[in-house]
Amino acid sequence: MMNFNRPLILASNSPRRQELLKAAGFTFKVRTKDVDESYPPDIPLQEVAKFLAQKKAEAYQQDIENEVIITADTIVKLKEEILVKPRDAEEATKMLRALSGTDHEVITGVCIADRNMQVSLDDTTKVYFKTLTTKEIEYYIKHYQPFDKAGAYGIQEWIGMIGIKKIIGSYFNVVGLPVAKIYDVLMNFNSPTLEEDN
Amino acid sequence: MMNFNRPLILASNSPRRQELLKAAGFTFKVRTKDVDESYPPDIPLQEVAKFLAQKKAEAYQQDIENEVIITADTIVKLKEEILVKPRDAEEATKMLRALSGTDHEVITGVCIADRNMQVSLDDTTKVYFKTLTTKEIEYYIKHYQPFDKAGAYGIQEWIGMIGIKKIIGSYFNVVGLPVAKIYDVLMNFNSPTLEEDN
Repeated sequence: MMNFNRPLILASNSPRRQELLKAAGFTFKVRTKDVDESYPPDIPLQEVAKFLAQKKAEAYQQDIENEVIITADTIVKLKEEILVKPRDAEEATKMLRALSGTDHEVITGVCIADRNMQVSLDDTTKVYFKTLTTKEIEYYIKHYQPFDKAGAYGIQEWIGMIGIKKIIGSYFNVVGLPVAKIYDVLMNFNSPTLEEDN
Repeated sequence: MMNFNRPLILASNSPRRQELLKAAGFTFKVRTKDVDESYPPDIPLQEVAKFLAQKKAEAYQQDIENEVIITADTIVKLKEEILVKPRDAEEATKMLRALSGTDHEVITGVCIADRNMQVSLDDTTKVYFKTLTTKEIEYYIKHYQPFDKAGAYGIQEWIGMIGIKKIIGSYFNVVGLPVAKIYDVLMNFNSPTLEEDN
């Protein structure tokens, strides 16, 4: 709904995030750079995603002029632990075994920024996995190689279809972006631009 | 996970249902016939989807031999009313206005049957729409023509991405099939086949 008429940049390599933002009707370019993803050990786990999205936004903010940039970070939180991207099949197996038969939270933090301002938001979705069999876990890892995914799964892939009976919250947030919340912010994003300053 | 080795038939024209069953890893053929979709006025609304799925299965059961057939019906239940497929833009507008700013239930009934037995199930997902603007409703109907969709929307389309902040239940159930439940039934579907009867 295309009354957003400033150049938009998605700062993410994730093809899933790019697809979501496109399907939400936005035209944008992708720009990425390496940003250190460490965070202070004393911040609450549920704030990590938003903290990292803000940190990424700050790394880009110096480079932009009239553009609006979107940064994001997704974490998978199982009880008091964060599951990152698995390094190999063994780690992926461990993660899926830990997620099996219980619920966890997927938290995506987002920062929408231009040169002058930042809007930060996050969204939490509770995800319930059925008890996965060893065969199902092996089959999924072998065929889908989920090494680029926090928590070692994609909800939109086979394991999500056969293994997740219920979520509470936004589905698209688990895929990678809380699209409805981002849409709301962009529709109301009226930071003065360089042009309008004149 | 492919230890289901009987011929499988999906009795649905819906491209969304076909995609879901395929992504769940099943090989199947599509077969359709016209089935009267009326139901007795005195059955509870939450049973309508399952009733219709069973009715469809019975219409196919006479034609099958060793195959296993899947039939399904999805209804959108807003308070004590069922929203069917809208006939035109005016009806679609009315439906989306009714769904705007409130929650409703999407109920998919499924029947999995061979010549000898039927397994019926259903699944309910609660869906929360934000308040939609007139412009958003107009834009969606014009660009997406949701006349083949009960309730006049597809959760996987633009309106679902920007308008639905939360669901409780299965996302894929709203798209058209409660895939995880169907997978469970198929993995345990051991009705004696004609061959095994010998």
